[in-house]
Amino acid sequence: MSKPFVFEKPAGMRDTLPAFYQKNEDIKNRIKQEMESWGYQFIQTPTLEYHDTVGEASAILDQQLFKLLDMEGKTLVLRPDMTAPIARVVSSSMKHVAYPLRLAYSSPVFRAQQREGGRPAEFEQVGIELIGEGTASAEAEALALMSEVFKKAGIAAFTVAVGHIGFVQELLADILGNDDRAADLLRYLNEKNYVGYTSHVKKLPLSSIDTQRLLKLLDLRGGIEVLDEASSLNPNRRGQQTLQELKDLYNLLEDYDAVQNIVFDFTLFSHMSYYTGIVFEGYAAGIGAPIASGGRYDDLLSRFDRKAPAIGFAIRMDYFVEALGNKSDDTKRHCILYTDERRKEALKLAKDKRNEGKHVVMQNLSGVKNVDEFSKCFDDVHYLIGTQQGEDFS
Amino acid sequence: MSKPFVFEKPAGMRDTLPAFYQKNEDIKNRIKQEMESWGYQFIQTPTLEYHDTVGEASAILDQQLFKLLDMEGKTLVLRPDMTAPIARVVSSSMKHVAYPLRLAYSSPVFRAQQREGGRPAEFEQVGIELIGEGTASAEAEALALMSEVFKKAGIAAFTVAVGHIGFVQELLADILGNDDRAADLLRYLNEKNYVGYTSHVKKLPLSSIDTQRLLKLLDLRGGIEVLDEASSLNPNRRGQQTLQELKDLYNLLEDYDAVQNIVFDFTLFSHMSYYTGIVFEGYAAGIGAPIASGGRYDDLLSRFDRKAPAIGFAIRMDYFVEALGNKSDDTKRHCILYTDERRKEALKLAKDKRNEGKHVVMQNLSGVKNVDEFSKCFDDVHYLIGTQQGEDFS
Repeated sequence: MSKPFVFEKPAGMRDTLPAFYQKNEDIKNRIKQEMESWGYQFIQTPTLEYHDTVGEASAILDQQLFKLLDMEGKTLVLRPDMTAPIARVVSSSMKHVAYPLRLAYSSPVFRAQQREGGRPAEFEQVGIELIGEGTASAEAEALALMSEVFKKAGIAAFTVAVGHIGFVQELLADILGNDDRAADLLRYLNEKNYVGYTSHVKKLPLSSIDTQRLLKLLDLRGGIEVLDEASSLNPNRRGQQTLQELKDLYNLLEDYDAVQNIVFDFTLFSHMSYYTGIVFEGYAAGIGAPIASGGRYDDLLSRFDRKAPAIGFAIRMDYFVEALGNKSDDTKRHCILYTDERRKEALKLAKDKRNEGKHVVMQNLSGVKNVDEFSKCFDDVHYLIGTQQGEDFS
Repeated sequence: MSKPFVFEKPAGMRDTLPAFYQKNEDIKNRIKQEMESWGYQFIQTPTLEYHDTVGEASAILDQQLFKLLDMEGKTLVLRPDMTAPIARVVSSSMKHVAYPLRLAYSSPVFRAQQREGGRPAEFEQVGIELIGEGTASAEAEALALMSEVFKKAGIAAFTVAVGHIGFVQELLADILGNDDRAADLLRYLNEKNYVGYTSHVKKLPLSSIDTQRLLKLLDLRGGIEVLDEASSLNPNRRGQQTLQELKDLYNLLEDYDAVQNIVFDFTLFSHMSYYTGIVFEGYAAGIGAPIASGGRYDDLLSRFDRKAPAIGFAIRMDYFVEALGNKSDDTKRHCILYTDERRKEALKLAKDKRNEGKHVVMQNLSGVKNVDEFSKCFDDVHYLIGTQQGEDFS
């Protein structure tokens, strides 16, 4: 096998250079601040977890897990998401803290990718988990907070699509009866492959009414009126119940003044297998993938022996930053280029400017090979060279 | 093999709960701010690197590397330090940016541990690298910045111990001739096992003068006068040269007003095998291990085909935070506990308080099982229940 070139990185691994790093940090800090102001507390879990605990609970496909063996031969995984690790923490180190619990995180997560895909195998998520709250208030809070984060971060045009796992599952079960046949259709929905869904539905041996019900599901996207259209598909009692839940949720969101950006979308079906109720995705103009996603997961905590309903969402930082476009970093970098005899003067100037909050590099001229090239790295260069007095920089 | 309990974490892996997280963040932000004000630019490299590139360059023992195989069968490592990855970046994505380069990072690093050791296998480092600068100005800058970071973060009592790899190597080579014999003694120094060093020296077949020279090395710790004592050990020409370098460095540090906390220590010998010149460690009162360490590494960059002298240091966040003691997080958490009929009032109050920068949880009473236990999580709880008007919280 050929050795990698010395500058190569593993598939899907990326470097974040200064300009993007700064932008990402600024945006992340605004997001974190908003989450904290809603009383969410940040925690951090380790990068490595046991495959048998968090790995299995994580809802990420096994082939997407980065796995390794520890010294005792147990299989470890690089955390593929933060929801399962937080469920572990809530059930162990934090088991004495009363529900409802509001926790938040800001962490890289890992999902192995094919080299050809070109997708990142490590990316940063900032998210919240509201654990131990089964009421509609929790759902309204999660959705309102997501919208507020978008606004505070400066994303002007966005939508939050809201669906319900229960409605789709009940409708499919009602029409198709067996799970395998439903699973095929759910897979198409998950992949957002509506052409595949349609042609698959048309091949099924169903009455024309049922075929129409399945096809109409794809049209259930839009404002509050979609709930009535969904009702007209004649869902079973439990399906009707999910519609009532969504109606109640919508009313709560009106109180939050947070319905402007909400659209209902019954085609939403997440690959995250632990979701049990509402699911939602945030979209920004010009970005083809969700910049945030979340949902209710009422069964996950019981896997960790501290049963509780829960809801959460995660923002995907790379897409989120992309959605904010090229707003440039306005932190200027100044440089003081000095010679030995004026070192003390340079030190004093640097100190004063740093105390004003400026970013100031002090550089001895003797350490620079190419002054022209080096100077290009700065917004301005102030020379303290020889004995002549220079000008103060702005 | 037994399965791990559902709440178990791999050896050396830790959870960071809200109180510590907040403290760590606050301190880290102060450190980062100081580094930025000196013109250092933060970057991020991936968690996974190739073993054949960064893994081999990293100066961490092979058995301490977490290894895994990628889909193509190549060996990957979890980054064991940040210096080697940054050397890779500087030689690839940033190869067009002129030297000297000032970069910084804030990242977890990974070093496998025996379960019995109880030491963390993942810990956070915040550090800087000044690359492409071989002058004493670069060394003075690194040391002065480290001191300034300590001061700005609030560490009252600290020392920065400064040694020189070159002096020790030359003295040992001069006396012992062959590398193997020197290697044994260097290992004792690296482990700070001075008893072992002493008894090993006494067993060596040396003249009493040479035995004394080797033993006296252990006494070479203290203020500027130590440089003269070192000179009296009669080092060879290159050894004398390192003493002159340190004297020049001291003079520069006087200009920075940064000599108060400096001590010279010729017993310093780092396990980081890439160091080539001065090495230094920061100590805080009450913490048994260095809270920061660094040194000059003039050969590492040539491994990545962009030859350059360089110097850097890393702060170890867990020890650093410990050194700051129990200064408590003063961010209060408020809670508004409301019932449905007063939701709008609760929303308005929460919004107002959040806009003032307060951290405010809004909680519907119907979602709380145990109000007493839940209330304990907050500094104050404001009730908006029933129809009676409550008091505003402070």
